[in-house]
Amino acid sequence: MTGTDPSDGDLEPLAARLREALGEDAVVVAPGPHYRGDQADPGAAGTRFVLVLPHDVEGVQAAMRIAHEAVVPVVPRGAGSGLSGGAVAIDGGIVLGLERLSAIREIDVLDEVAVVEAGVITADISAALSPQGFFYAPDPASAAISTIGGTIATNAGGLHCAKYGVTRESVLGLEVVLADGTLLRTGHRSLKGVTGLDLTQLLIGSEGTLAVIVAATVRIRPLPVARRTVLARFTTTAQATGGVNAISRSPVRPAATELLDVGAVTDIDAHNGSSLGADPELGVPSSTGAVLLIELDGYGIEEQAADLTRALREVGADVRVVDDEAEAAHLWELRRSSRAAGGGRARLGEDVAVPKSRLAEMVDRIEEIGRRHGVATSAVAHAGDGNLHPSLSLPGVPEDPSGTLPAQILAAADEVVRAALDLGGTISGEHGIGTAKQRWLDLELSPVSRELQRRVKAAFDPHGLMNPGRAL
Amino acid sequence: MTGTDPSDGDLEPLAARLREALGEDAVVVAPGPHYRGDQADPGAAGTRFVLVLPHDVEGVQAAMRIAHEAVVPVVPRGAGSGLSGGAVAIDGGIVLGLERLSAIREIDVLDEVAVVEAGVITADISAALSPQGFFYAPDPASAAISTIGGTIATNAGGLHCAKYGVTRESVLGLEVVLADGTLLRTGHRSLKGVTGLDLTQLLIGSEGTLAVIVAATVRIRPLPVARRTVLARFTTTAQATGGVNAISRSPVRPAATELLDVGAVTDIDAHNGSSLGADPELGVPSSTGAVLLIELDGYGIEEQAADLTRALREVGADVRVVDDEAEAAHLWELRRSSRAAGGGRARLGEDVAVPKSRLAEMVDRIEEIGRRHGVATSAVAHAGDGNLHPSLSLPGVPEDPSGTLPAQILAAADEVVRAALDLGGTISGEHGIGTAKQRWLDLELSPVSRELQRRVKAAFDPHGLMNPGRAL
Repeated sequence: MTGTDPSDGDLEPLAARLREALGEDAVVVAPGPHYRGDQADPGAAGTRFVLVLPHDVEGVQAAMRIAHEAVVPVVPRGAGSGLSGGAVAIDGGIVLGLERLSAIREIDVLDEVAVVEAGVITADISAALSPQGFFYAPDPASAAISTIGGTIATNAGGLHCAKYGVTRESVLGLEVVLADGTLLRTGHRSLKGVTGLDLTQLLIGSEGTLAVIVAATVRIRPLPVARRTVLARFTTTAQATGGVNAISRSPVRPAATELLDVGAVTDIDAHNGSSLGADPELGVPSSTGAVLLIELDGYGIEEQAADLTRALREVGADVRVVDDEAEAAHLWELRRSSRAAGGGRARLGEDVAVPKSRLAEMVDRIEEIGRRHGVATSAVAHAGDGNLHPSLSLPGVPEDPSGTLPAQILAAADEVVRAALDLGGTISGEHGIGTAKQRWLDLELSPVSRELQRRVKAAFDPHGLMNPGRAL
Repeated sequence: MTGTDPSDGDLEPLAARLREALGEDAVVVAPGPHYRGDQADPGAAGTRFVLVLPHDVEGVQAAMRIAHEAVVPVVPRGAGSGLSGGAVAIDGGIVLGLERLSAIREIDVLDEVAVVEAGVITADISAALSPQGFFYAPDPASAAISTIGGTIATNAGGLHCAKYGVTRESVLGLEVVLADGTLLRTGHRSLKGVTGLDLTQLLIGSEGTLAVIVAATVRIRPLPVARRTVLARFTTTAQATGGVNAISRSPVRPAATELLDVGAVTDIDAHNGSSLGADPELGVPSSTGAVLLIELDGYGIEEQAADLTRALREVGADVRVVDDEAEAAHLWELRRSSRAAGGGRARLGEDVAVPKSRLAEMVDRIEEIGRRHGVATSAVAHAGDGNLHPSLSLPGVPEDPSGTLPAQILAAADEVVRAALDLGGTISGEHGIGTAKQRWLDLELSPVSRELQRRVKAAFDPHGLMNPGRAL
C-alpha cells in the first residue's frame, strides 16, 4: 500500500524500513483523511505522513526505534475522537495508530483490576466486566468510540467524575514505549504503592508528548446495587446553580449532576420535541427552564433520593424522582443529545472548569460575552466538578464543512476561556490542550511551570519527537 | 542560638546568611536529636547541620536561595513522623522544618476544598472541618502527629484508602518552592483540569527530592451520614483472607477492612487483656482466631451490613455488627494498639503491598520465612488495598535502644520484601523509600525507570541538592 501523490516519494525510504520491520499491512503512506486529525478543526493537519498500525507491542517498539533513528516526529493516535487536536498528523512524520492493540488481556475481580491494551474501546471494558458484576468507572462522552489509551493520554473526564474520579484515579499501572523504542512498565497492581517517582501519574494526561501508551492496568469496581435518576427543574439558570450549591451543602454525593442552562434546555427540547424544561403537571411553564439531571447510585437509594429532594426543594426546585427506568434512560438520552441539538449552524463547543461555587458567575459571564459579540450561548456542565461545556453559535449562519468558524465566535470563545481563569478555573476541564488550546497556555501556566514541563519532556524525549508542539 | 560543638564552626558562615535573611529565631546550628531523623533507624543521620524553621513561604524561598548559592543539600522536614528515613539530616547541610507554616488558609465547603500550609497537623484539617459537616479523607495512622506536607511528600496511605483513595486522590493543587527558591503553583481548585503535564501528581510522593511543598489545595468531603463497625472472626488466617475475597466478590465496599492474623490477634489480646479473637457466646475458641475488623459508612448502612454479613458467613466467619458506639471505638483502639502490642522486644515493622487476592499467599510466605529464620511473625493488613504490615520479632531479645536489629530479623525482612515482589506486589505500600528501602529499589524498578527518574529529578534539581540519596 503506497500513496499516489508523487510528492510522497521522500517518505518512501522511511516507509520501506517500517514495512520491513512491521509487515506490509502495517504501513500506509499518505492515507485518507480519517487518519489526519481528530474531532478538532483539522485545518493545520499534515497530509504527507506515514501511518503505522502495529499489530503488537513489539511493532510499536520497532516503529519507535525507526522513528528515533530517522529523527522523525511521531503522533500517537487512539481512535481520533479527541476534541483538542492532540492527534493531528505532522508532515514528514509518523502517525502511530494503536487500534490493533485491542486485547483485554486479563480481568481479575478479586484484585479489582483489568489489564487492557491501548486500542480497546473504552466502553468495551465495562461491557466485558458486566457479566461478572463489575464496571470501569471513567465514562467520557466518547466512551463508545474512544480508546482506553487515548482516554489515559488525555486524562479524560465525563459525567461521573465527582463521585468516581477522572481517568487518572482508575489507572494503577502503564506499559509504555519510550521515544527510543524501549519498553517501560510503571506502577503496580495493588491500590497502594509508593516506590520512587510516580511515572504512571506523570504519563496520564501527557497527550502523547512523553511516550506511547500500549497497555494499562486499570481499577475496576462492583456495579452499584441501585441507580435512580432525579430531575430538578428551575425557572432560571441562576436558580439551578443554587441547586448545585444546595447539593454541596447536603450529605448526598450523586454519581452525576448535569446542569443544563435555559439555552441548552430550549435547544434540546426544540431538537427532540421533548419537554425537559417544562412540566404542566408540576406548574413549570413551558417557555423556560433550567435543569439539573442527577443520577444517584449505591446503597440507601431511597434515603439518598429523599435527602436530595429536600435539599433541592429548599432552593425552589421542582423535583421528580424518576422511578421508571425507560423514562430515566430517555432523559439521559436527551442530555446526550445536547451536542447535536442546535446543530447545522456555525458553532463551537468549549471546555472549561471553574471552582464549582463559581458556576453561577461563569454562566452569567458566558451570557454577557455572548450578548456583546452577538453570539448565541448555552451551557451544559458536569456541575459536580465545575466543568462547563459552553456552546457558542450563530443561529443564522450555516456550519462551514471545513470547520472554519466566524470571527465573532472565536472572539467570544477567547473571552469565555479568560473568564474561567479569572474565576479561578482552568482553560481545559477534560478535553486537553492538544493544538487547539495552545494559545491560552501562558495565561494559566507560569513561565516557571512551562520551563519545568519542557525539561521533564526532554527527560523522556531528548530529541523532541513525541507529538511535538502539542499539549505543553 | 548556636551549637556548642566547636567542630560546627564551618557551618557558621551558612548559618549567618540564613539568620540575616530569616531572623535569629529561625536558625539553629547542630540542634538536638529530635531534628536529626524520623521514626526510622536514625543510625546514619548527620549531626552537623543547620536547622532552619522559616516563619512563612518567603522564608522558605530565602532559605532555598541561600542553599542553592552555597551548594548545600536540603532535607525538607514535616514532623519527623516518617517511617522510612525520608527526613534524615545530612552533615554540612540544612534541615528545613516546615512546622511553623501551620495556617489553614481557607475552607470552602461549596468548592469542597481546603487550602492548608505544609505544617498543619493532618488530623487538624478534619477537626477544623467537622463543625461544617466535612472531613479530609486521608488518615494515615500518623494523622495526629504528621504534617499534611509530609503526608503529601510521601503520598501517605492509611486505613480508608480502598474507598477514599490515598493522599494523592485528595490533592488538587500545590504551592512548592523549587531548588533555587522560585515559587511554583501547580494544579487547580476544580476536581477537573488537564492543562499541561500534571506536576502536582509528580510532586506527590516525591519525598522532598524535587521541591519543598509549602501549601496544598486539598479536596474535602461531607461526613458520612452513618458508620457501622463489623467484627468478623475466623479460626485461621487463611479463612480471614478468604473473607477478603468474599468482600471483593460482593457489592459492598467498606471504608476500612483491617485484617489481623492469628499472631496479631494473639499479641493484641495479650497486650490489652482483650478478647478480639475469641467470643465464647459465639463459640469461637479463646486460644486462636484471625479477625477482619470492618468499617462501613454512608447511606443504606443496614443494607450494607446485611450484605456484608451474608458474604462473610458464607465463608465461615462469625460475624457481629457492632451497634454500640463505645464498643466499636474500643475495637478500633485495639486495632491501633497493634504496633505497641508485643513491644519491648527486638522487632521490625514492615510495609509491603500485594495484589489483594494474593494476601493468603503472602501471609503463608511470611510465616514460612519467620519459621526458617527463627523469627516470630504476625501481620496486620489494610486488606482492601493489599497493604500488609508484617511484624518480625525475637520475643526473647530485648529492644536495642539504638534501633539496631538482630541479623535474623533483617534477613527475614529482606525475604518478606522479595516475597511481596514475587507475588506481583511492591516494596512499599505506603511508608515510602527514604533511606530505609533504598537497597530494594532495583528489585522493583528497571534500570530504564531509574534512569528516567534521575533525569526527571535533574529537571527540577539540576545541582542535586533536594534530599539527595533518598527515595530515588
